[in-house]
Amino acid sequence: MASKDAKISLKAVKGTRDWSGSDLLLRDHVFETISNVFKLHGGTPLDTPVFELREILSGKYGEDSKLIYNLEDQGGELCALRYDLTVPFARWLAMNNVQQIKRYQIAKVYRRDQPAIARGRMREFYQCDFDIAGQYDPMIPDAEILRVISETFDALDQEIIIKLNHRKILDGLFAVAGVSADKIRPISSAVDKLDKEPWETVKKEMVEQKGLPEEVADKIGQYVLNKGTVDEMIKFIRSDEGLAANDEIKAGLADMDLLSAYSKELNTFDKISFDLSLARGLDYYTGVIFEVVQKPSSKKEESRYPGKPTKGKEETSAGVGSIAAGGRYDNLVGMYGKKQIPCVGISFGVDRIFTILKARQGDKAGRSRQVDVYVMAFGGKEFDGLLLQRMSVARQLWEGGIRAEYSAKVKPRLPQQFKAADDVPLAVILGQDELADNKVRIKVLGAGKGGEEKKEDEKDQGLLVSRDNLVEEVKKLLQTTSLPIR
Amino acid sequence: MASKDAKISLKAVKGTRDWSGSDLLLRDHVFETISNVFKLHGGTPLDTPVFELREILSGKYGEDSKLIYNLEDQGGELCALRYDLTVPFARWLAMNNVQQIKRYQIAKVYRRDQPAIARGRMREFYQCDFDIAGQYDPMIPDAEILRVISETFDALDQEIIIKLNHRKILDGLFAVAGVSADKIRPISSAVDKLDKEPWETVKKEMVEQKGLPEEVADKIGQYVLNKGTVDEMIKFIRSDEGLAANDEIKAGLADMDLLSAYSKELNTFDKISFDLSLARGLDYYTGVIFEVVQKPSSKKEESRYPGKPTKGKEETSAGVGSIAAGGRYDNLVGMYGKKQIPCVGISFGVDRIFTILKARQGDKAGRSRQVDVYVMAFGGKEFDGLLLQRMSVARQLWEGGIRAEYSAKVKPRLPQQFKAADDVPLAVILGQDELADNKVRIKVLGAGKGGEEKKEDEKDQGLLVSRDNLVEEVKKLLQTTSLPIR
Repeated sequence: MASKDAKISLKAVKGTRDWSGSDLLLRDHVFETISNVFKLHGGTPLDTPVFELREILSGKYGEDSKLIYNLEDQGGELCALRYDLTVPFARWLAMNNVQQIKRYQIAKVYRRDQPAIARGRMREFYQCDFDIAGQYDPMIPDAEILRVISETFDALDQEIIIKLNHRKILDGLFAVAGVSADKIRPISSAVDKLDKEPWETVKKEMVEQKGLPEEVADKIGQYVLNKGTVDEMIKFIRSDEGLAANDEIKAGLADMDLLSAYSKELNTFDKISFDLSLARGLDYYTGVIFEVVQKPSSKKEESRYPGKPTKGKEETSAGVGSIAAGGRYDNLVGMYGKKQIPCVGISFGVDRIFTILKARQGDKAGRSRQVDVYVMAFGGKEFDGLLLQRMSVARQLWEGGIRAEYSAKVKPRLPQQFKAADDVPLAVILGQDELADNKVRIKVLGAGKGGEEKKEDEKDQGLLVSRDNLVEEVKKLLQTTSLPIR
Repeated sequence: MASKDAKISLKAVKGTRDWSGSDLLLRDHVFETISNVFKLHGGTPLDTPVFELREILSGKYGEDSKLIYNLEDQGGELCALRYDLTVPFARWLAMNNVQQIKRYQIAKVYRRDQPAIARGRMREFYQCDFDIAGQYDPMIPDAEILRVISETFDALDQEIIIKLNHRKILDGLFAVAGVSADKIRPISSAVDKLDKEPWETVKKEMVEQKGLPEEVADKIGQYVLNKGTVDEMIKFIRSDEGLAANDEIKAGLADMDLLSAYSKELNTFDKISFDLSLARGLDYYTGVIFEVVQKPSSKKEESRYPGKPTKGKEETSAGVGSIAAGGRYDNLVGMYGKKQIPCVGISFGVDRIFTILKARQGDKAGRSRQVDVYVMAFGGKEFDGLLLQRMSVARQLWEGGIRAEYSAKVKPRLPQQFKAADDVPLAVILGQDELADNKVRIKVLGAGKGGEEKKEDEKDQGLLVSRDNLVEEVKKLLQTTSLPIR
């Protein structure tokens, strides 16, 4: 029956994927875990359209604007797929004149980037954002965002490091080192590569490609290769007269003093690595910036918090890069011509988190179909399949809130039915004689038994119960059977 | 701080909307209700990319293809936004060679149609699909789909009618009336308008625009204006010698005989109106087709099931049209050049269902922010705001799984804090003296009280508890307070 369309390529678009089965269940588990943390903090959900007016997106992403997917001009408004969830959130805030909110959004975003599927980098991928918008006292919302990060990865059973820096300190540091104002952003994006490249390569880029005098580059190197706890780094910066005298750095350090106190109270202090090499690409950040990476395995642990600031390349995490990132952006909402609304937020890279969790899960993937009961029938020579009776019993189970299926055959054979019930913990078995007595049998199947007994016991006749008590008896058994993911 | 971008239009794209607050909560309630029903029936979720290769979508939607949104050709594959969830499902089935599955998908689809927002017709809108794919005995999956429809609207507390027809009976009927094979689809789409237009208008379209002889049109009218229960209509069709002799109609009636038996067992029989005027636009249907409408208000009820088939225009439901629709499509998967996989499914128009539920809800919308406890502090002249202590208490509550907030001010005033807690049922109030004793006060706020007492009782000092028992005491109180949506 193949039609003339037979030669079309049967695939999902490059850089996208279908989600189904146990992958989808694991992904939804991640979503649920994360949004439960958001709700603990008073977050309210937001859902925006998948496309925006092109002019809403333009001028927000710097060089990365070339990665935006446009919709074809088919008449009417010019649109583009969203690139992140931050700009639509800023548009929504400005449009509705919302003065303060904690909002979260879990949705797909789109980037015409070169996909690297094994490392979890796709053209269509999920982001999972939590942002606090509003005029508040300094660093109180920022400290809560760090707490949200910490709770989320605790809930996902992931050990992490929050790499953190402050745009004002970074910009001040460049100024003190002798970088001219117009070169600060390009030099900043070179420094941001220090998590992937050795210092020598980055220095070369700054000197040879970006025309920075070598002594300025060396001075930058003296600063940005340092990292440590918030308190250690505050002390380190204050101990340098040049840095300590800079006004931007002073303002940044005042924020960091508060963060030190708040993060101790909120129990996030030990997870933060104040890392002067962290720069983050996007233009719109104005205060703290942060990136979350997996904590390296324990043998490397000693070198991480070395009593005094250390120098060197950060161990990158299991090939997937940062698994969450964010920062403060106080001027973005004002770009839409209304009042400024300061914001700070975090975006979780759920596809990357999924990749890590799936690797950890290994072969222990859960069931993809989650059915409680398979309704089956058998009988002798005169057996007519008992289809209407199977329907009737299934209806009774559905009405009792029990997930039930039956074979969509008029006369299914018994082995077929057991095969179809392979991943189902219970069978309700109908026989003509029992039905005449208003009774059915409930049998615990292999999938409902613990490891040892997993094999089907063919001699087990099951429990004979009245149809009047069927739902109750099934519920009782479901509580005692060994169920995989429920 | 308004920038040069001040003049961009600050809006969501025409025909799209943002979802937030109580609207989003209601919508998610609809999603959850529907997917719980899908799960009862062993449904497994699927998530496909928002865009597909254009060639996957082409040739599937007839005239409506002009409504497809294309992505701009920016190099690489040519893509288009999905128009529905059925074609991506068929692509996924063919691509993965899945032989049988019950899959569901809740996702946005895209149509460049003229939006009619008040009636719930948008360019970006949600569909919520459940389909059964696989080679099964006739009408068993179809009957289960009707059961899914019935359970879903029961769960949403909506009274409905399932208008149902069979493509084979409809096509046979046109043939018997004298419609030539090439005119069957155009005449069918004229007949489909009978839910909105009177017979005379439809007849005029058939005769004047589509060149049908008047006597053929009249003969069609004799047939398609009839509707009734499945049993009544089977009898009606069999009583007409011309119809009864047609092979296609015979095959359709054999299906309807099975559906009669199965729908009685599954308790959907009384909800089905076998309506010969139902035709459905899409080309790919091959068997039963159905459309769900709200049941008209009770005063019109008598005329609906009149003992024998009735003629006339169906009462349309509250201006929103059909709220779910579907049917059997046995040849779609085969269009992708692999094996045929017969399918039957239903698509719920959740935006329309949302419109109805919201109208019914009226002003009783739930809280949009769902916080259990507001942690506040007050004190005398020396009051320093107790920020670190508020953080510490909030952390304790978060760790206990309680949704908690505090003011993001160092020294918030007490009225400010009560105002911020306007929709929060409980306050935990910190005072310097109590804290010295390791104690805090819990106070039930206005939002946590029943209707009568709703006003804030300012003299109520609350319950003094030890911080060691705080989580426990809060949980106890949350169970007894009158909470809106939880």
